[in-house]
Amino acid sequence: MIAEIIAVGSEMLTPHRQDTNSLFLTAGLNDLGVSVGFKTIVGDNPRHLIEAIHNALRRADILILSGGLGPTEDDLTRECVAEALDLDLHTDADVVLALQARFRARRMEMPPNNLKQAQVIEGAELLPNPNGSAPGQWLETIIRTADGVTHRRLIILLPGPPNELKAMFAAQVQPRLEAQLPPRFIARRVLRMALIPESTVDARTSPIYSQFKDVETTILAGHGEIQLHFVCEKDTLEEAEERLDTLVELIEHEMGDDIFSSDGESLEEIILLMLGVRGLSLAVAESCTGGLLSQRITAIPNASRNFVGGAIVYSNDLKVSICKVPARLLQQKGAVSPEVARALAEGIRERTKASLGISITGIAGPAIPDGPDSGKPVGLIYIGLADEEDTQVKQFMIPGDRDRIRLWATQHALEMLRHTLQ
Amino acid sequence: MIAEIIAVGSEMLTPHRQDTNSLFLTAGLNDLGVSVGFKTIVGDNPRHLIEAIHNALRRADILILSGGLGPTEDDLTRECVAEALDLDLHTDADVVLALQARFRARRMEMPPNNLKQAQVIEGAELLPNPNGSAPGQWLETIIRTADGVTHRRLIILLPGPPNELKAMFAAQVQPRLEAQLPPRFIARRVLRMALIPESTVDARTSPIYSQFKDVETTILAGHGEIQLHFVCEKDTLEEAEERLDTLVELIEHEMGDDIFSSDGESLEEIILLMLGVRGLSLAVAESCTGGLLSQRITAIPNASRNFVGGAIVYSNDLKVSICKVPARLLQQKGAVSPEVARALAEGIRERTKASLGISITGIAGPAIPDGPDSGKPVGLIYIGLADEEDTQVKQFMIPGDRDRIRLWATQHALEMLRHTLQ
Repeated sequence: MIAEIIAVGSEMLTPHRQDTNSLFLTAGLNDLGVSVGFKTIVGDNPRHLIEAIHNALRRADILILSGGLGPTEDDLTRECVAEALDLDLHTDADVVLALQARFRARRMEMPPNNLKQAQVIEGAELLPNPNGSAPGQWLETIIRTADGVTHRRLIILLPGPPNELKAMFAAQVQPRLEAQLPPRFIARRVLRMALIPESTVDARTSPIYSQFKDVETTILAGHGEIQLHFVCEKDTLEEAEERLDTLVELIEHEMGDDIFSSDGESLEEIILLMLGVRGLSLAVAESCTGGLLSQRITAIPNASRNFVGGAIVYSNDLKVSICKVPARLLQQKGAVSPEVARALAEGIRERTKASLGISITGIAGPAIPDGPDSGKPVGLIYIGLADEEDTQVKQFMIPGDRDRIRLWATQHALEMLRHTLQ
Repeated sequence: MIAEIIAVGSEMLTPHRQDTNSLFLTAGLNDLGVSVGFKTIVGDNPRHLIEAIHNALRRADILILSGGLGPTEDDLTRECVAEALDLDLHTDADVVLALQARFRARRMEMPPNNLKQAQVIEGAELLPNPNGSAPGQWLETIIRTADGVTHRRLIILLPGPPNELKAMFAAQVQPRLEAQLPPRFIARRVLRMALIPESTVDARTSPIYSQFKDVETTILAGHGEIQLHFVCEKDTLEEAEERLDTLVELIEHEMGDDIFSSDGESLEEIILLMLGVRGLSLAVAESCTGGLLSQRITAIPNASRNFVGGAIVYSNDLKVSICKVPARLLQQKGAVSPEVARALAEGIRERTKASLGISITGIAGPAIPDGPDSGKPVGLIYIGLADEEDTQVKQFMIPGDRDRIRLWATQHALEMLRHTLQ
């Protein structure tokens, strides 16, 4: 089964707006064993839209249109689908009543052009929209292509706002498609790794996954993380799950500790889980990352169980006053030095009484002028990690711009934590 | 002039990858007065790609294809364009030499299929690619549509990786298009506001901008910010700039202080500028936002000139030990209270000797169980701002999930700072 998605709206032909609904729709369709063959973005132009609908009906079994169901003159999806299929539109009395009730509830007069939203394509079934005023439509029809052959086609009209589209797809479209399509048994796994080059992951894992011709493998890289996605379809779900279990075990054996999660957890979640299991608490002292590490950890609900907080020691004065770094050390070695990273980690641990103290100091760029750190390169980072027994300090050189250096520095800090907690 | 963009690559028909190049291309084309009429995403399927090329050539003056120029079997853009136009492909000797040199420099043998990248469409000009191995192609041609009419068409093949595509577009495509197209004089302005509902901005500004029929207005909303984009084209740049100056002055008069920037600066940049001009320094004490406010400020280069850092007082112990909040106050009022917000702002200001201390305490969710803050609603936020003379505390109720509550809390903190510094 092949689906085609047409996103309707002139705003998506500007530099400011992008169709994101199709990613969600594609995931849902793939789950049902339907692949997406084409995506088209069309403006609010009836000639263009009708042409896109004709093209899609020729080549796809399922056509999903998103957007263009509003009440304005620019909302043309209903009209264009009807015209492309040579079908009539009629006004649905129940929808009119619902629209009127919606406006009454807000103590507003319904503008007459809102009646457009009650127009239904001949033969279509309405899909209720709990999050908005425009109902969707579901139309099963037969078309005849130029070669005289007839084809069964399913055409689905969905509203453009993502919260309306997503709810309608989940509640209305997915169950209807499931009922029509043969059952599919698809298992999925995601293995996550941090800070390894994509080419290394591929070189080490492709000899394994390429033996699993019945598993679809995708490698995604970005933001200091590599993800291996595996998808397998079998006659039963158990078979599919078992097949992926076998593959994942082999990959885990090859990549070992480099894999931080195979159940979907983020690196931050893994760190908090490990701290929780071991009954430990964590504090941070951040210089060049300015709170980013802490921000990432506290984005996880209930982080407060094992994360106490810490200090953003952006100025040298705060390094001295909050983390008790000796002023002489800062002057002699510079703030970006292994000695200061060590003093910060130990200092914040002591001040907060946390089990672990972690520090990041470095040059995120632009380069620092005169001073004890001048001459040190942009991207140079030191991370200190102090526990009851010991303090380790590591040096990193991170290429890229300020944002990338800061993000990767926090990735390295989380990875140091993970390896220490393991 | 109408352009059409075809993004080629099966990965963009999965739930994981999206075409983002077209946003960049659209901005560049719009600058030259070219609008985008259609965007299509096609997989690595020659039949589909040729069909998409035929459709585009019928209706657009300029066709830009991105992707499919690599060395693998799946890279089919060159072949499909040649076939769609019934043109030959020939191998360019200079490109072969350049490819061989590229591999030699990396001490690698060139796999034979890389020769694909040296294939040039008959009549096309090569566009050098300083960031990758695949050159782009620029082809001017004449096509005849079904009605027998001939049309001049420009077809541009660009590589898929964004860094290669962007550099090639800027260095090769933009100047060539500029030389061919009549000069256009387009002025642009962006006014930025924080934390106002989009509908309020529209209600207050549309009576003004709707009088400027010669100005294209776009309202963009997201992440606690509203942007008003204005574009105006005239016979001279001065005329266009003057016209926008007039409009912007009227909008600024209506919206007043609500506008935080009309020159592109972010809210964080404006705060740092204001601190710099007034020679003030800032420190933060963050509880529920966990470093997000500090992280946003330190994302700006040279923030250290006026930002000293501060504390992430996630645990109550740290509120007491770093910011000197009386333990009794925490017990009586709870950490999420105006009293504690005040004590945190004053405490961090005193400890860091900064001119200004700002604090955020609140419930980002999920709800806190037993304790002095239980029963307080998720989304309740207090922000304290202490300066030499005075401390102000404000209460906010922010709807939404944890991420939104944290982001909006930092937006409110930045806005409180801005209003105080004005």
